[in-house]
Amino acid sequence: MARRVEVRRAALAKNAELAARNRALFQAKGIKAINLLSAPGAGKTTLLEKTIRHLHEQGFRAAVIVGDLATENDAERLRRAGAPAVQIATGTVCHLDAAMVAGALEKLDQELELDGLDFLFIENVGNLVCPASYDLGEDLRVVLFSTPEGEDKPLKYPPMFKSAQLVIINKIDVAEVLGFDLERARENVRAIAPQAELLELSARTGEGLEGWYAYLEQQLQSQPRS
Amino acid sequence: MARRVEVRRAALAKNAELAARNRALFQAKGIKAINLLSAPGAGKTTLLEKTIRHLHEQGFRAAVIVGDLATENDAERLRRAGAPAVQIATGTVCHLDAAMVAGALEKLDQELELDGLDFLFIENVGNLVCPASYDLGEDLRVVLFSTPEGEDKPLKYPPMFKSAQLVIINKIDVAEVLGFDLERARENVRAIAPQAELLELSARTGEGLEGWYAYLEQQLQSQPRS
Repeated sequence: MARRVEVRRAALAKNAELAARNRALFQAKGIKAINLLSAPGAGKTTLLEKTIRHLHEQGFRAAVIVGDLATENDAERLRRAGAPAVQIATGTVCHLDAAMVAGALEKLDQELELDGLDFLFIENVGNLVCPASYDLGEDLRVVLFSTPEGEDKPLKYPPMFKSAQLVIINKIDVAEVLGFDLERARENVRAIAPQAELLELSARTGEGLEGWYAYLEQQLQSQPRS
Repeated sequence: MARRVEVRRAALAKNAELAARNRALFQAKGIKAINLLSAPGAGKTTLLEKTIRHLHEQGFRAAVIVGDLATENDAERLRRAGAPAVQIATGTVCHLDAAMVAGALEKLDQELELDGLDFLFIENVGNLVCPASYDLGEDLRVVLFSTPEGEDKPLKYPPMFKSAQLVIINKIDVAEVLGFDLERARENVRAIAPQAELLELSARTGEGLEGWYAYLEQQLQSQPRS
């Protein structure tokens, strides 16, 4: 067991080093990198489809790196929305790591000029546990959860929520039919992730998206974290 | 990297050994052990609440082991439903393993006579990736996914679905309002998990539960897997 812990520590140290390299690249190129995390099916891809279309209309340039165990489905959806997208198939690995993102950045770089890219969205593997431990070099970590999952998700997956700069509650359009208690959900977010901002929206119907878009544009004006 | 793979292989070999011990215990005591796996918020606990009540009414004895990163919430819900329940708090670990289950079995054994227990439900950590690799010694592996997560979950998390004896599609009561395509979901299950039986239900409304109850009672009559 001690050996396992030691190997894991070495892997995380190596990851931190590669994440710092990614971060330096993002800063040098003026790219705002956003790591998007959630359980399976919480609506990351739908949110990104809408977001990509909106940002393009506003004259911004955005690209996406997508992680899944298998399939190219999400990358294809995001390409149809108009963004260059690189799919990482992790096989049995439950999270993206900084090395995978570095590899995907090289692929993206062959497709488009990274200079002048405003946003890079990294859609992580659908998982509320493992990806919390892996810094990818992102500027911002956005954790989504959706009303069908229940109000208790922040309480049950604290490392993930504690690592977020922004928490999004998605699928608020079906909150009522599902008996989702929005006030209790807000309290749970505040209790576990007092550091995080909170947005509530429905990526599917578009309700609340203007708050998310405003948040993104604000980020472009802010200084990168170092 | 090679060292990581080797350490992981050793951990899985150790786990297999402990799982075999759990399995031998279940067989000796005549307990049907069921490993219940899903993404966060797919409805495992709600399904178990209803199931526990039903099994008790039918004169069966059932107990539960619950895994979560944090909180005793699910164990408390299941105790209120009438089952002895042991909560395992995994901290940052994304799955249960056979050693954790063995420890929980010892705790259960102090509370009740394991002999004469008909069903032991093991509610795994909400995660469609990591728990797939860890045999707990269970007789049956049941993988749930729910309509709000989308039809594509089997395609995106193949190791989990390939390891299932039974796949349950939950929350069919909201399938229509969410635009969930049940026929496409069935095709995806059949494509990835042709070995698995398939049930469709709503744990919340009770629709389809009779099929699940019948499935469980059939399992009691069948020989244990060895």
